[in-house]
Amino acid sequence: MDEAQHRKGILFVMTGASGVGKDTIRRAALPAIDGMVYSISATTRGRRPGEVHGEQYYFYDRTTFEGMIERDELLEYADYVGDYYGTPSLPVRQAMDDGSDVLLELELVGAREVKRKIPEAVMLFIAPPSLYELERRLRGRGTDSEAKIQKRLARARDEIRAVREFDYAIVNDVLEDAVGLFTSIIRAERARASHLQDSDVADFLREQG
Amino acid sequence: MDEAQHRKGILFVMTGASGVGKDTIRRAALPAIDGMVYSISATTRGRRPGEVHGEQYYFYDRTTFEGMIERDELLEYADYVGDYYGTPSLPVRQAMDDGSDVLLELELVGAREVKRKIPEAVMLFIAPPSLYELERRLRGRGTDSEAKIQKRLARARDEIRAVREFDYAIVNDVLEDAVGLFTSIIRAERARASHLQDSDVADFLREQG
Repeated sequence: MDEAQHRKGILFVMTGASGVGKDTIRRAALPAIDGMVYSISATTRGRRPGEVHGEQYYFYDRTTFEGMIERDELLEYADYVGDYYGTPSLPVRQAMDDGSDVLLELELVGAREVKRKIPEAVMLFIAPPSLYELERRLRGRGTDSEAKIQKRLARARDEIRAVREFDYAIVNDVLEDAVGLFTSIIRAERARASHLQDSDVADFLREQG
Repeated sequence: MDEAQHRKGILFVMTGASGVGKDTIRRAALPAIDGMVYSISATTRGRRPGEVHGEQYYFYDRTTFEGMIERDELLEYADYVGDYYGTPSLPVRQAMDDGSDVLLELELVGAREVKRKIPEAVMLFIAPPSLYELERRLRGRGTDSEAKIQKRLARARDEIRAVREFDYAIVNDVLEDAVGLFTSIIRAERARASHLQDSDVADFLREQG
């Protein structure tokens, strides 16, 4: 296929509270979805044992990161507990230009920023069945302090109130159902007639075997 | 649940050439999809042995049908080989008001008319892998005269050229894949955040067990 005929990739942005199961859904769904790149974030936080630059994160020092901010090389970024986190534009745009779809996992503020810059991004919200259930899950993990749990719940509340800004809402009640719906949404979005290339339509119209 | 809280049903319109597999896809997919009503057309053509009013078609005489046209009781209609075929509005709108999704199978002209009247209708186009393959299938059925085959192919060509008017394109190459994609599109459309009711958002925000 001619490079120029490649369809441009679709950008999917997934948002949802800590503990709602975003990572679990993604890890369960992506192996069965071809041609989808999961975007790796950049951060200034220290590298933990076993972490590799370009796998868990792109690890940069503050000077480098602030240079990227100044040169507008990030789709979005945030300062979180003293460290920067952000999404480098170039790998996302390159993957899309090559025809790969890209998945970002972002907080609400970052998701809004990406939608502002790339309006055709498809926005997915992962909702808990209830904040009660989310709290139960957060406590079940046993990793967060009470203060941190309360902070996560407050953020979840704000994000849920913004759910109608998103294109799709996936309620993660039964994980298997949420994974199935996530996959269905990606398949459906890929089947949008607006993504058809002239070569696709020419194929449909072909009269010779 | 309070009647007033029911989400309104979604209208799906499926279009595609004769022989492309619309009926086969629908019959394979619908049993696994809850809450979907397949809309029955009205016609003035004679009832064939075994056909029941309200099952294959609503059978009306010409005077009755023309009265429905005059009273604007049809979402769309066409005069085809001397008989009227059309979609009564009332059962479609009632089902949607009751919260059921509705599926219509329509020719391009009727599909456009429905989209004009109900802009939120979700438009699905079933495309053949090629006109060559469609012709092979039509000949394989062995039911149509050469003239009829040529007429169907000419209509298919016109419809394919309009594929970008639709929301989704499903290529019916491998039937199982087409059925899966059809089902995925319906599931995805049902998960649109715009369909969320206030009660759904209240559920997500609920803090008590």
